[in-house]
Amino acid sequence: MLGIGKTGWIEKERPNCGPMDAICRPIAVAPCTSDIHTVWEGAIGERSDMILGHEAVGEVVEVGNLVKDFKPGDRVIIPAITPDWNSVAAQGGFAMHSGVMLGGWKFSNFKDGVFGEFFHVNDADGNLALLPDGLDPAAACMLSDMVPTGLHGSELAKVEYGDTVCVIGIGPVGLMGVAGAVLKGASHVYAVGSRPDCVKIAKEYGATDIINYKNGDIAQQILDQTNGIGVDKVIIAGGGCEILETAIKMLKPGGCIGNVNYFGDGEYLNIPRAEWGVGMGHKTIAGGLMPGGRLRMEKLASLLVTGRIDTSKLLTHRFKGFDKIEEALMLMKDKPKDLIKPVVTIDW
Amino acid sequence: MLGIGKTGWIEKERPNCGPMDAICRPIAVAPCTSDIHTVWEGAIGERSDMILGHEAVGEVVEVGNLVKDFKPGDRVIIPAITPDWNSVAAQGGFAMHSGVMLGGWKFSNFKDGVFGEFFHVNDADGNLALLPDGLDPAAACMLSDMVPTGLHGSELAKVEYGDTVCVIGIGPVGLMGVAGAVLKGASHVYAVGSRPDCVKIAKEYGATDIINYKNGDIAQQILDQTNGIGVDKVIIAGGGCEILETAIKMLKPGGCIGNVNYFGDGEYLNIPRAEWGVGMGHKTIAGGLMPGGRLRMEKLASLLVTGRIDTSKLLTHRFKGFDKIEEALMLMKDKPKDLIKPVVTIDW
Amino acid sequence: MLGIGKTGWIEKERPNCGPMDAICRPIAVAPCTSDIHTVWEGAIGERSDMILGHEAVGEVVEVGNLVKDFKPGDRVIIPAITPDWNSVAAQGGFAMHSGVMLGGWKFSNFKDGVFGEFFHVNDADGNLALLPDGLDPAAACMLSDMVPTGLHGSELAKVEYGDTVCVIGIGPVGLMGVAGAVLKGASHVYAVGSRPDCVKIAKEYGATDIINYKNGDIAQQILDQTNGIGVDKVIIAGGGCEILETAIKMLKPGGCIGNVNYFGDGEYLNIPRAEWGVGMGHKTIAGGLMPGGRLRMEKLASLLVTGRIDTSKLLTHRFKGFDKIEEALMLMKDKPKDLIKPVVTIDW
Amino acid sequence: MLGIGKTGWIEKERPNCGPMDAICRPIAVAPCTSDIHTVWEGAIGERSDMILGHEAVGEVVEVGNLVKDFKPGDRVIIPAITPDWNSVAAQGGFAMHSGVMLGGWKFSNFKDGVFGEFFHVNDADGNLALLPDGLDPAAACMLSDMVPTGLHGSELAKVEYGDTVCVIGIGPVGLMGVAGAVLKGASHVYAVGSRPDCVKIAKEYGATDIINYKNGDIAQQILDQTNGIGVDKVIIAGGGCEILETAIKMLKPGGCIGNVNYFGDGEYLNIPRAEWGVGMGHKTIAGGLMPGGRLRMEKLASLLVTGRIDTSKLLTHRFKGFDKIEEALMLMKDKPKDLIKPVVTIDW
Repeated sequence: MLGIGKTGWIEKERPNCGPMDAICRPIAVAPCTSDIHTVWEGAIGERSDMILGHEAVGEVVEVGNLVKDFKPGDRVIIPAITPDWNSVAAQGGFAMHSGVMLGGWKFSNFKDGVFGEFFHVNDADGNLALLPDGLDPAAACMLSDMVPTGLHGSELAKVEYGDTVCVIGIGPVGLMGVAGAVLKGASHVYAVGSRPDCVKIAKEYGATDIINYKNGDIAQQILDQTNGIGVDKVIIAGGGCEILETAIKMLKPGGCIGNVNYFGDGEYLNIPRAEWGVGMGHKTIAGGLMPGGRLRMEKLASLLVTGRIDTSKLLTHRFKGFDKIEEALMLMKDKPKDLIKPVVTIDW
Repeated sequence: MLGIGKTGWIEKERPNCGPMDAICRPIAVAPCTSDIHTVWEGAIGERSDMILGHEAVGEVVEVGNLVKDFKPGDRVIIPAITPDWNSVAAQGGFAMHSGVMLGGWKFSNFKDGVFGEFFHVNDADGNLALLPDGLDPAAACMLSDMVPTGLHGSELAKVEYGDTVCVIGIGPVGLMGVAGAVLKGASHVYAVGSRPDCVKIAKEYGATDIINYKNGDIAQQILDQTNGIGVDKVIIAGGGCEILETAIKMLKPGGCIGNVNYFGDGEYLNIPRAEWGVGMGHKTIAGGLMPGGRLRMEKLASLLVTGRIDTSKLLTHRFKGFDKIEEALMLMKDKPKDLIKPVVTIDW
Repeated sequence: MLGIGKTGWIEKERPNCGPMDAICRPIAVAPCTSDIHTVWEGAIGERSDMILGHEAVGEVVEVGNLVKDFKPGDRVIIPAITPDWNSVAAQGGFAMHSGVMLGGWKFSNFKDGVFGEFFHVNDADGNLALLPDGLDPAAACMLSDMVPTGLHGSELAKVEYGDTVCVIGIGPVGLMGVAGAVLKGASHVYAVGSRPDCVKIAKEYGATDIINYKNGDIAQQILDQTNGIGVDKVIIAGGGCEILETAIKMLKPGGCIGNVNYFGDGEYLNIPRAEWGVGMGHKTIAGGLMPGGRLRMEKLASLLVTGRIDTSKLLTHRFKGFDKIEEALMLMKDKPKDLIKPVVTIDW
Repeated sequence: MLGIGKTGWIEKERPNCGPMDAICRPIAVAPCTSDIHTVWEGAIGERSDMILGHEAVGEVVEVGNLVKDFKPGDRVIIPAITPDWNSVAAQGGFAMHSGVMLGGWKFSNFKDGVFGEFFHVNDADGNLALLPDGLDPAAACMLSDMVPTGLHGSELAKVEYGDTVCVIGIGPVGLMGVAGAVLKGASHVYAVGSRPDCVKIAKEYGATDIINYKNGDIAQQILDQTNGIGVDKVIIAGGGCEILETAIKMLKPGGCIGNVNYFGDGEYLNIPRAEWGVGMGHKTIAGGLMPGGRLRMEKLASLLVTGRIDTSKLLTHRFKGFDKIEEALMLMKDKPKDLIKPVVTIDW
C-alpha cells in the first residue's frame, strides 16, 4: 500500500528484531477483505508505504535473545492479532485490546504486514505457534484470522448444545462461523447468504437452512420458520450497520448476539427499542475482535490436525510464488463469483 | 386505573384462587414509576379498570390445594415478577420471560395489581417468600422491585472486585444500583444525578463521585476523571434512549453495560460505531427485567436481615392506611424534590 | 423389582393423574445400568414391588386439567429426570436437586418407573417434549438419559474449542461423553476403555486415541502421550472411587473434571494432595446429575433431528414387544461382549 | 533461610536486572505463615541460603531498558505472585501456573524473596503497581498476598447476592475471606474459628455467626443452624486435609467450595461419596493460588483507597527498621494469642 487507493511493491529495510521478537518470512499468505478496506476505503485512516497482510504461515529467520521456544528454521503460524501479553488489558482477559482498543491488531495497521520478504513479530514466545507436522501451510494460513474470527462468533454468542443459530453472512468468516456454531453444539443453523458457491460450502459446514435476503426480510423469514419464536443465538459475520436491527428482531429473549463483523462506515448501529424488550429483554449484544496469540493458534491448529474443521474448502484460488500476492489481492478486491478465499504459497 | 390518564377506586370481585395459587391482602405497598408510565403515558398500551401496583408485602388469606409451603396468615414478600416456573423460558434461565418476552411481569400488566383489598398470586410455592421475623414490612416492600432491579444491574454488568462503575440515574432503582455495585465489589462508583436528596443518599450507599449532567457531557466527565480510560462497567438506571451512546463512550474495551432501565419511548437506542470498536471492542450490552420468584426474594431478604442493604433510606414518605394509596401514587406522579419513594402500610 | 435381587411382573393400579400431570404408556424403553444397580446391588436402598425403568419414549393417554401443551395421543420423550420446576433448587439453576439432592430423579426411585403399561409423569408441561416427526422412537429413547448424561460431562468440564479431553469409560454414557466433547469443540479425545466393540464406536464418535488400562497406569499413559503436560479436561463416565485420583493426575492446572458417573460404593473419593497443587492448582472437580425437563429434551432432540448426534450406534440389541423388557433387562445384567445398549419398542 | 530449620542474615550480591525487570528495595514487608512452612517444615523442599519473604511494598531502584511504566523512585506494590505473562498458562487465564503448576510463585521459592536490601521483580510492567498516594505502605503490604488470597476464595466459590457462606479459618487469609464474601454479596457468613482476637475482627469484617470447633462437629453445627439445609458456598482458609470432608457435608447441592488453603501434608483430601451425591450432587470443588500481577494489584488497591476493605485491622504488630524482620518472623513462628499479622516498615 502506497497510499489510499494505491498499491505497489516497495523496498524496505529488513525490520529489526527486539530481544523478545522474531523475524519471519512468509510460506503461505492470504489477503483479507480488511486489506481491501484499508487500501481502497481508507477504513483505518491514512497510511502510506505500509506493507499489507496479516494472514500468514511463515518460517522463523531470526529471534531475539530472550526468546526461549522458537529458533530460526521453525515453521510457524502467525496470528493476525499479536497482543502485548503483559498489558493490563491482557491480564483482564482482553489481550486483543492491549494498549488501546483493538491494539492487538498490529500487522498492516500500526506496522508493516506479512506481505513482505521479512516481517517482524512482537513477543515471539507469546505469539507464534509451531506449524504441526503434516498440516498444509495454505490450509493453516486460515488459522491467522478466518478460523479464530469465525469461531469467536459462537464464543461471543455463547452457543450451547441444541441451540438454533442464525449466521448472517457466509463469506469466509461467516463460513467459519457456521462451522464454529456446529462445533459448539448448535442444532439448526440458518445461514444468511445468496452466492451459490458459498451456499454450497455453508451446507457442507453444517448449515441446515439457507436464508436469502432476496426472498424478503431476513428477520421475518427466520420468524416464519421458527413459529414466530426466533433463534437462540445470532452470529453476525457480514452486513452494514442496519444488520443489528435484523439480528435483534430474530432473537429470543435470553438470547445473545455475537458480532465478528467489521463495521466500516455509518455513525450508529441501531437497537430497536420494542423488540429489545424496552431495555429488559435479556437480548445481549456482544462484539469483539478475535483473540490472538500462541495458545489460541495451538488450540485451533489442533482442530485442523484432528479433522474437526477443514479449512481447505475455503481455498478456492491457490497461487504459488511471492510475486503472485498482488494478483491474489486484486482477486479479493474484484470478488469474482466463485471466490471464497485466495491463498499464495511461497517456496524459498 | 380506569383508563389511560384516569385513576380512581373501583369495586371488583375477589379473585379466584387456582390450585397452586394464593390470595393475599396488602400489608405494605409502594407505587412505582412504572405505574405512572402505565397510567399517564400508556406505556404498556390501553388498559381499563385495572388495579395498579406491583410492590407489596402482604398476608396470605387463601391458598390452593396444591400449595405446600404457605398457609393463610403467613406474612409474605410478593415479587413484582411472578414467573411460570415450568415454562421453557424458566428452564433456560430466563423465567422473567416465561410465555413471552417480559411475561413474568403480570401484576398491573396482564392482571390486577396489588393495590386491591385482595390480590391473586400465581404459583404461591414458586413466587412467595416468608417475611423474616423482625423485618419492617415497609422496608421489605422494596424487595418486590427496587432491590432486585437495582442489583440486577451489577449482575448484568458482571461487576467484579475493584471495578470502577458508573451508575446512570439515582432514583430509587439507581440508588439500589449503587448499593448493589458496592455489594459486588466495585471500588470507585460514579453516580450520575443532580437532585440533592438523591446525591446525599447515593453517597451513603457508597458512591465515591457524583457526576452532574449540568456540568457538561457525562461521558466526557467520566473520561476526564479516569485519565481518558473510562470505567470498567456501566449500570443504566435512568435516561432516555440516547443514554446508551453515553454509556458506550465512557466504557473500556472488555467492559459491560447492564441496563435495568425501562425505555418508554423512542424507536431506537443507538450504538456509536467508532466508540463501539467498529463492532469489535468487546463492549457488551446487556439489559434485562429483574429476576423474580421465591428464591430471589429469600436471598435478597437475607441481605436486609443481615444489614448488608438498608432500604429504609429510600422511604422518604410513609403513609398509613389503604385509603392513602392514591395520595402516595399522586406523590410519585408529581415527584416533589425531596421524594425518593413513598410507601403505604396497612393494618387490617 | 420385587425386592433387592428379585425381579418379576406385578399387577398394579393405573396411577392417578394430578392436575398438572400426565399418564403415558411406553413406545420405546431401555434398561439402564442403574436399574441393575438398584435391583442387584441395592444401590438406592430397599425397594419392594417397584416398577423399574427411567428411559422411555411414550404416548400420552391422559393429562390433568391444568396441562396446556400436551393431549392424549401425543408421542413424547420422557426424561429420566423430571424436576419440580417451582422448587427453590430449580430457581437456583439446579432443578435436578429439587426438594432434596438428586430429588429430580423420581422414576424407579421414589415412584414406579416406565416399565409399566401406564406410568405417571409429574408436571407434564414442564417435563415432556414432543417426539419430532420422523425420529425413530428407539433412537430417541437415548435422549432420556444416555445423551443428556453423556453431554453433561462436557458441560461440567467446560470443554472449549481445541481442548484435549480424556473420557474415562466408554459404555453408552461414556460414548455420548465422547460425542459430546467433540460437539463442544474438543480436538484430541482420549477415550479410556478396552472392549473392542466400544472402542470401535468411540472412534466413530470422534475419539482420536484409545487408552487401555491393560497397558499400564491410565494417567501415566496420558502424560506420556502429552509430553508430560496432561489434558485440558477430563470426563469421568466410569470407574470406581479410585478413578478421581487418576483424573487429577492427568489434568493440567486450570483444568476441570466433569463427573457423570454414579459411584455406587466406597466411603471416599480421594484427591491426591500434591498433584492437586497442594490445594492451589486450579484443578476444578465438578460432578452432577443430568439436567432433565422439557427444554433439555427439546434441545437434545434437535441434535438428533439435525444429525449432529447419531444415537443409533448405541443400540446393539433391539427387541419388539412389552414382554421383551425382562429379556432386555437381563441382557443389561449379563453384559455380553457385544452389548452397548438394548432397547425395546412396543406397538399398542 | 540458611537451610531447613535455620534462619539468619546472609550477604548476597545485588541481583541483576533483565531488560523487562526491576530491582526494588522494601518499604514495608510482612512475614507469612508460608515462610514458616518453608523454613521449619520444609514444605517446598530443601532450600539453602535463600532469602525469605513475598509480601512487600517497595521502592524501585533500577529498571530494565524495556520497562515503560516504572522508573527508579516509584513506590510500588509487589504481588507475591509474579507470573510470566506471555506463557500459554497466562493466555489461558491461569497466569499463576505459568511454566509449571504454581509457577507464578517465584519469591522465596524459585528465587530470593523480599526480605533483602534489594530484590528482583520479573516483568516490571506486568507485575508492579504504583502505590496510590495516601495509602499506608503497611496496610498496602497486605495486598501482596492476604487480600488477593482471601478474596480469591469468594471468586472460586462463586459467591452471589444473598448467599450463605461458611469461611473455615480466620487467620489473616480467612479474615480477608470473610471480608471478601461480604464484598461479593454474601448475607449470612459463618466464620469458623476460636481465637478471641480473630473472632472479634471476623465480626467486624461482617461475620454474622461464629462456629467454634470446640462446640462439636463443624458441619453438624452449620446444618443445625440452617435447618439441615447447609450453606450455599464454603471458603476454606485453614485446616488440614480432613477439612474437605467437613466442607462437603455442610454444602447444599449446587454449591461450591473455594479453597485458598495450602495443604502442607497428608497424601489425600477425601470427598465423602454419599454426601457428594454419589458423584452427582453438583457440589463443585475449586481451589487455587491467588492471581497476581499488576492489574490485580491495581484493582485491589482501589478497594483500599475507596475504603471497601480496611486491612489495618489485621496489623496487630508493627515494627520499624530492616533489622526487625527477624523479630517479626519469629513472632509469626511463635504465634502469640493476640497476633494476627506483623508488619515491618523501613525508612531508607
